[in-house]
Amino acid sequence: MTVSDSLKNDLTRLLGPEHVLNAPAQSPYNSDASRRRGLHGRADAVVLPGSAQEVAAVVRWCYAHDVAIVARGGGTGLTGGAVPTDGGVVLSLERVRAVRELEPGLWRMFVEAGVSTRDVQRLARENGLFFAPDPGASEQSQIGGNVATNAGGPHALKYGVTGAWVTGLEAVLAPGELVQVGGWARKDVAGYDIKSLLIGSEGTLGVITAVRLRLLPAREAQVALVVFVGTRAEGCAAMLSVPAAGMEVAAMDFADGETLAHLAGGYPGEVPDGAGFALLLEVDGTREQVEQQTDELRELLGGGALAIEQPQDAAALWRWRDGFNGVLSGVRGAKVSEDVSFPVERLQEGLERFEEIAARHGLSSCAFGHGGDGNVHATVLVDPADDAQLDRAQAVGAELFSLVGELGGSIAAEHGVGWLKRGLLTSQWDARAVQLHEQIKLAFDPKGLLNPGKKLARPPAAAS
Amino acid sequence: MTVSDSLKNDLTRLLGPEHVLNAPAQSPYNSDASRRRGLHGRADAVVLPGSAQEVAAVVRWCYAHDVAIVARGGGTGLTGGAVPTDGGVVLSLERVRAVRELEPGLWRMFVEAGVSTRDVQRLARENGLFFAPDPGASEQSQIGGNVATNAGGPHALKYGVTGAWVTGLEAVLAPGELVQVGGWARKDVAGYDIKSLLIGSEGTLGVITAVRLRLLPAREAQVALVVFVGTRAEGCAAMLSVPAAGMEVAAMDFADGETLAHLAGGYPGEVPDGAGFALLLEVDGTREQVEQQTDELRELLGGGALAIEQPQDAAALWRWRDGFNGVLSGVRGAKVSEDVSFPVERLQEGLERFEEIAARHGLSSCAFGHGGDGNVHATVLVDPADDAQLDRAQAVGAELFSLVGELGGSIAAEHGVGWLKRGLLTSQWDARAVQLHEQIKLAFDPKGLLNPGKKLARPPAAAS
Repeated sequence: MTVSDSLKNDLTRLLGPEHVLNAPAQSPYNSDASRRRGLHGRADAVVLPGSAQEVAAVVRWCYAHDVAIVARGGGTGLTGGAVPTDGGVVLSLERVRAVRELEPGLWRMFVEAGVSTRDVQRLARENGLFFAPDPGASEQSQIGGNVATNAGGPHALKYGVTGAWVTGLEAVLAPGELVQVGGWARKDVAGYDIKSLLIGSEGTLGVITAVRLRLLPAREAQVALVVFVGTRAEGCAAMLSVPAAGMEVAAMDFADGETLAHLAGGYPGEVPDGAGFALLLEVDGTREQVEQQTDELRELLGGGALAIEQPQDAAALWRWRDGFNGVLSGVRGAKVSEDVSFPVERLQEGLERFEEIAARHGLSSCAFGHGGDGNVHATVLVDPADDAQLDRAQAVGAELFSLVGELGGSIAAEHGVGWLKRGLLTSQWDARAVQLHEQIKLAFDPKGLLNPGKKLARPPAAAS
Repeated sequence: MTVSDSLKNDLTRLLGPEHVLNAPAQSPYNSDASRRRGLHGRADAVVLPGSAQEVAAVVRWCYAHDVAIVARGGGTGLTGGAVPTDGGVVLSLERVRAVRELEPGLWRMFVEAGVSTRDVQRLARENGLFFAPDPGASEQSQIGGNVATNAGGPHALKYGVTGAWVTGLEAVLAPGELVQVGGWARKDVAGYDIKSLLIGSEGTLGVITAVRLRLLPAREAQVALVVFVGTRAEGCAAMLSVPAAGMEVAAMDFADGETLAHLAGGYPGEVPDGAGFALLLEVDGTREQVEQQTDELRELLGGGALAIEQPQDAAALWRWRDGFNGVLSGVRGAKVSEDVSFPVERLQEGLERFEEIAARHGLSSCAFGHGGDGNVHATVLVDPADDAQLDRAQAVGAELFSLVGELGGSIAAEHGVGWLKRGLLTSQWDARAVQLHEQIKLAFDPKGLLNPGKKLARPPAAAS
């Protein structure tokens, strides 16, 4: 359907003229941070409601007029979840960003969806507390988007993903009702876990307007260690040896040899000769604990390592890590990176076979990610103007997803399903569990207007 | 419907004659541990399948023949979730109890539903690991039931409830298919969070046959402290002062003055004169951490306390705590205990007003629970032969649930909804969220045969 002038008139009456925008082809609201081929939509309008009530009013209007609604946070997504692939209204949460409640003594915060993840982290820190989730791009990304995708990050290893820190949600559900699920009660089994169903649903079941977050007291100390080894096999064995030794580290990321080769320039230190794999570890806790764990890690991993570095500035290390996407994109103009996970004991096999797949398709590959969680960003470097190369990259992705299914991993670890991975759940879940996705979607969104085409369990043609 | 002889013949053919039992009126399979008035069902048959495949076969047969299925774990429930209130087949998981996988180096365990919670804890401990959830009655209760009710316990304060430790489930879904949701991949956003929907669904959406559990390395040390204060107000203030001081304790239970009066006899130590409230605290971690935290707690709470005791045997303290239900039931022959939660800052108000409600109805009340989580077991002591008293106890419960709604708590914190609390969600959740429960139930269980009448969001007559 096309969105008529009356749509803009009506939405303008609801929100004021400055909060209803046109979306010309090049509008940033038509794409996300993935820069993947073809992943550019065309919104009929972009609306910027200023409150949860205005979000509900927009959803109500759209639902009554059969207009699709694509909720959007900071636009840092990598799978097209916020891209208006089929038109409709892009509903940006950027102005819905009040801090409704901050109770340091009770370790909690109630913030609206548009507050940036960085601001959530900062508010916690300024009050002696700690918000554990740390997905990339935290300056641009918004907490509502983090919850809607159940975002991860390096410290998910010890602290779990974003959803683990959400005790309640406010969301607009179809046909336009503002509801609360969960709250401040820390134990609550009164209903089905609809909160967890909304977390990670990527705007397909409702629009999250505010989140109740649980915080922790600030860690007294953190130490980062970078462990360089010669080979991938040594690196994967080292990663398994840490839990086997009973050590609970806060983060255990990795970069393979190809990744290191491209990223060595910006590394805040010295990459030793012959380094073919690196572990990025962080331990946290009291000063004594951190000192003790650092010693234990050096003892455990030192024998097989080319070097173990302890950056003075752990934050600089994580900034370097956060920059991998940008640098790797620059090598050949673009990259195609798939976010998958393997059971940790199959990680080495997964990495080896991914490399073989890419090589067979004549593409240069590299891999990095959150190794302790088995989470890999499996990457091929491509020339964005070379369509044949992009076709081959897509073929690599398809084989990778089959491999993930074979090894018992997940086709989507922390970046969501969005548009790029629609229809892939069939390689991972049983038929009855796949079917339930469509039934749940129908219960929440009978008209199919909430982020249509996204996070589909089956390809559209196959859905019953 | 009545279950015919052909039912028993068919089920006997599936499972063998020794695994299909009759359920005479006094069979333990007709009730649970709540001993609440009227909460006694009558199963048409009890079946004891020996494998997940046999569970699927039973569900398939029942679903094809329109026979209700009541899944049952250890029978330690307190809200009637496993009671066959409307007949049908009780499907006991007690024989489905293989340990399918135990990988100490990877901190994980794949166990079938019928393994006792105590055995899960023991297996972890014997392998240098730690399974954090610790609901009561762990010797009898089974891990499948714990997951199906999302059970809590004292240590949920630091470690979260049972569901937080489940990375994957195997379940039989209607009409009788064995499916896996989740797995060993530690990050997985490929589908909607159907795993969390099944957790806490109390057998109304599917029958859990096996669970994949995440473990932690064993804590090096634990210390329990009992802090006696004069009044409830002092006790509640003390409980709030702990997080406000930035201290993360593993458990913070409480017992009010009436509870203490009844329980003092079995306390492994000395209850000081004038004690009107007690906090049961536990700290854990490295030896140094535990020592430091113990000192800090003594410093923080010592000023206002009548006494702070440090039991030599923390396990004896928790055994005493685990015995509260039994002792309190013995005072007048029975008790009616409602498991609710309040936001922690409203706990004092909740406790005061509960006492007023009970007094207004002429009943003796007491309260204990997991104070750090705001989780109260609000109890009235009754004579089970006095129907008028039981009526008044029920009226107290109804007022308590309204109070919980008013204060932003939950009508069901950790014991489930079962049969006793069916229809109460309307006091807590918005209409649209309540309606979704019925739609979700319909998607999972179109014939309404899975534990019918349990965990209803609305009273049956009000459901659309």
